Amino acid sequence: MYHAPLTDYNYLMQCFTPELSKEDRALYDAILTSVDELCQAQLVESNFIGDQQGIQFNPEDHSIQLPKGYQALVDQMRELGLFALEHASVWGGLELPKTICQLCYEMLMSANSALFLGMSLTHSACMAIEKNASEELKNTYLPKMVSGQWMGSMCLTESHCGTDLGLIKTKAMSKGDHYLISGQKIWITFGEHDLAENIIHLVLAKLPDAPEGSRGISLFLVPKWLENGDRNTVYCAGVEHKMGTHVSPTCVMQFDEAQGYLIGEANHGLAHMFVMMNDARKTVANQGIALAEIAYQASHAFVKDRRQSRALDPNKHDHAHPADPILHHPDVRRQRLHAKSIIIGLRALLFYAHTLPQDDPLTNLLTPILKSFCTEIGCDVIDHCLQVMGGSGYVKDWHVEQYYRDARIAMIYEGTNGIQALDFVLRKIKHHSSEWQSFLDQCKKDSEAMAPWLKPALQKALNETQHHFEIILKDLDNNSEIAAAKAPIYLKLAGYTLVTLMWGKLTQNTDASEQYHTLGKYFLDHEACKIEALSIELNQDFSLITEFKSEDF
Amino acid sequence: MYHAPLTDYNYLMQCFTPELSKEDRALYDAILTSVDELCQAQLVESNFIGDQQGIQFNPEDHSIQLPKGYQALVDQMRELGLFALEHASVWGGLELPKTICQLCYEMLMSANSALFLGMSLTHSACMAIEKNASEELKNTYLPKMVSGQWMGSMCLTESHCGTDLGLIKTKAMSKGDHYLISGQKIWITFGEHDLAENIIHLVLAKLPDAPEGSRGISLFLVPKWLENGDRNTVYCAGVEHKMGTHVSPTCVMQFDEAQGYLIGEANHGLAHMFVMMNDARKTVANQGIALAEIAYQASHAFVKDRRQSRALDPNKHDHAHPADPILHHPDVRRQRLHAKSIIIGLRALLFYAHTLPQDDPLTNLLTPILKSFCTEIGCDVIDHCLQVMGGSGYVKDWHVEQYYRDARIAMIYEGTNGIQALDFVLRKIKHHSSEWQSFLDQCKKDSEAMAPWLKPALQKALNETQHHFEIILKDLDNNSEIAAAKAPIYLKLAGYTLVTLMWGKLTQNTDASEQYHTLGKYFLDHEACKIEALSIELNQDFSLITEFKSEDF
Repeated sequence: MYHAPLTDYNYLMQCFTPELSKEDRALYDAILTSVDELCQAQLVESNFIGDQQGIQFNPEDHSIQLPKGYQALVDQMRELGLFALEHASVWGGLELPKTICQLCYEMLMSANSALFLGMSLTHSACMAIEKNASEELKNTYLPKMVSGQWMGSMCLTESHCGTDLGLIKTKAMSKGDHYLISGQKIWITFGEHDLAENIIHLVLAKLPDAPEGSRGISLFLVPKWLENGDRNTVYCAGVEHKMGTHVSPTCVMQFDEAQGYLIGEANHGLAHMFVMMNDARKTVANQGIALAEIAYQASHAFVKDRRQSRALDPNKHDHAHPADPILHHPDVRRQRLHAKSIIIGLRALLFYAHTLPQDDPLTNLLTPILKSFCTEIGCDVIDHCLQVMGGSGYVKDWHVEQYYRDARIAMIYEGTNGIQALDFVLRKIKHHSSEWQSFLDQCKKDSEAMAPWLKPALQKALNETQHHFEIILKDLDNNSEIAAAKAPIYLKLAGYTLVTLMWGKLTQNTDASEQYHTLGKYFLDHEACKIEALSIELNQDFSLITEFKSEDF
Repeated sequence: MYHAPLTDYNYLMQCFTPELSKEDRALYDAILTSVDELCQAQLVESNFIGDQQGIQFNPEDHSIQLPKGYQALVDQMRELGLFALEHASVWGGLELPKTICQLCYEMLMSANSALFLGMSLTHSACMAIEKNASEELKNTYLPKMVSGQWMGSMCLTESHCGTDLGLIKTKAMSKGDHYLISGQKIWITFGEHDLAENIIHLVLAKLPDAPEGSRGISLFLVPKWLENGDRNTVYCAGVEHKMGTHVSPTCVMQFDEAQGYLIGEANHGLAHMFVMMNDARKTVANQGIALAEIAYQASHAFVKDRRQSRALDPNKHDHAHPADPILHHPDVRRQRLHAKSIIIGLRALLFYAHTLPQDDPLTNLLTPILKSFCTEIGCDVIDHCLQVMGGSGYVKDWHVEQYYRDARIAMIYEGTNGIQALDFVLRKIKHHSSEWQSFLDQCKKDSEAMAPWLKPALQKALNETQHHFEIILKDLDNNSEIAAAKAPIYLKLAGYTLVTLMWGKLTQNTDASEQYHTLGKYFLDHEACKIEALSIELNQDFSLITEFKSEDF
């Protein structure tokens, strides 16, 4: 029932990467098609099984089993090279552009977002290793991780600290050429499973003489199996029971003097980790889009077929049946346009960000917007997809309720959306204000070339974004609590403005389809109007938020 | 961990029912307290067990078992008279005012909303019987249903029709003093269970000579056990697997020439059913509030204790700990104020509606707003309660994810929120436009007495509500599809306006606490500003929604 939106993908490439050669396009099309086929043939179905059966944790031997069939499925993903898409060819990677990876990952996450987490964390771990580890570590670990033979995990959170990693207690003691890591990590996604021969944990820990707080954190590579074939002393000590993503093991990981190797410089672990974190955040943004897309498709199959009541317009009556498809009902159509205009707009925004050079400062500026906005608005789309199905949306038969549950974590992990907003306003805008300013200037210039039905609204939105940016810069100087209270609202205002910009870019070419013009107009009329409310809210009194008495809550 | 917000309840009574005698107040206080105690002592805990264990359906004997302990729990609820609260004393009822029932039901739904559905449907069935059934039926069934010894169910939906009940196929054949009912109903809440000696189904069916469509529906009473002790031929043939409300059985009910008795007039079944439907819709509104309340409480226990990062304001640093409670972080505080100002505002709106005489035309006008707005905004509050907890919101330990899943059905059942909006605009406003007009006039008059910080914004909101009302009346004449497309947006605009009105009423007395003033101001500044965006959206082009090509979706 799932079909990748390949036409939309093609149009994106045409708009944002027109420089691609015919040969490259042909290659990418072949890759996209083969991923789509895998999703249709097996991944979508495996996702339902995964939700129902979940994982089996055996406390005796600390093992975790995924449902039957998952190992063979991951073998197929390895064969297709899906673990290798974005990595350097020297390690066996395919070196695909980020844009094409985005589309592949979107399909994989639409089809089975919980399983994809295992692949995604392997990517992230590879990235951190590639960037900062010694040649020896790279040579030992990267080839097998890029092939997917070994998988990865990221061990950051401890029970008393997630956001505030400066407080971690996990210790690392030097011992010859390696370190002994001791401590407990929680919420470790794919910390243990039976899908790979080895699991390579990247672990944040503190050396004995480390400075306090976040400047005293180091990054270690801790394999489940050592090179000599011995089992390392890292074990899964428990698993979480969650609302969704049931097939993704969320583990308590116990390190008892486990052998580990330092990655990069001592006490620079957090910076090394952030290499991959920024990438992971864009992947989470993509998850919001991916689950919205499949929820749209699943619910669309329903609203096209389900007949209930007569269309209000007699010309739309289908006299062969006693009732008309609910797709004819204006409120259902409105929610369809809402979903479709947002999915295409968000996907374009992420794609646009992926066309930027990785070291472009704008990439860093956009990351928190992408992570927060794509997941929040993506979840909202799924909510509407569930809603148009009535009771059928709430029962398990149609799976939309699963997408609703699975997607909800995306607003939380890799830094909650609230943390993203703080990152955007208290760090990014504050320390890179001139980059944000030049980006807004560039957007204004770009807007000149856009269709006349969109240009004035976009320019107004950009002016609001500019205006509140200036005020927030002052707030940052005067009272950073006010800036923090405004942060999520300003981020959302920027998000709506950027998606408006994307609809401008998507419709400024004469070859944009009539469908795209209408979707763009819908977004402008019915979604972008939220910018006005956000702008009004930003003008309000925020001191009552910071000054409300804690005991009165 | 749950405590009923009795102080808020008391303030509501003081504001909206100042005429209550001291004796009545004392009685009501005692009832509220005893319900709160039951919730705290047992119901809250039973809810977690219910979610985990769900129901057991045995296809062999068509029986459904609820978890151990549920029978004893329902016995206690019977003893406390909770089934009898609102019914006439002639049937053993306590004749409590609707306002007090609202507060009792809110507590019960906060504590265990899935179980409450069984009680709620018994109430609704009693109401339909009391209003339209023969004296004989009333005498036979009401005393045992009002005591809770027997419970009720409402059998409306069939697989091909839920909203569009005119299409039902269930048949009723006359046979002497009774009828034989044959057909299949789906989504029958508490259609089968082991909590009561008998289950009294109210069933919509068609007589052989009935006119087509909704004017040919009759209402029948079909008991599981007949008066002579025989088992009637009505059976549970299957159950649904749902995202939430796991302890509420959602049944496929098979009627094979089951004995039934006509309630009221033949072919007037839908009208008879709507007696209870309007009441049930207000109960669903209350569910949105109730689950938001307990989600707020559960998440508040977390944000008060969870320490992560330092407060931005150095004066708030707690040097005894390495980090400060996340309640100090402005974004968390903002989401707390959001939740609290909405919960209190929605509860006041429902309470206000319950102070109106039941036959007041305004009651009918407000019902779709209450059902739709309280559930949509209530679910949004729960979403934010989950969010402030980060990963802890997503795992089962804190139960907020359960409230999130359980509440989601409220936007769907008893007529989806989309149907509520159509009812509000295409029926209520259209056919009772003068009542809506006089209500808006009355609100404007009321606003004159309100605090100066609120009055101008409320009056502006009322003017927007008035303005779009006039335009929609024209749309209804010119193009009802446009009116239908606007309906949910107009309903939401009216909802925000009415909650603003409530905050005006809650703060116009000098004895309103400082806390209430701040919450009202928060609502005005940060929530009521959404009225502006809704108003802007209503001014946009809606024809693109109705004219978008179906194949382009």
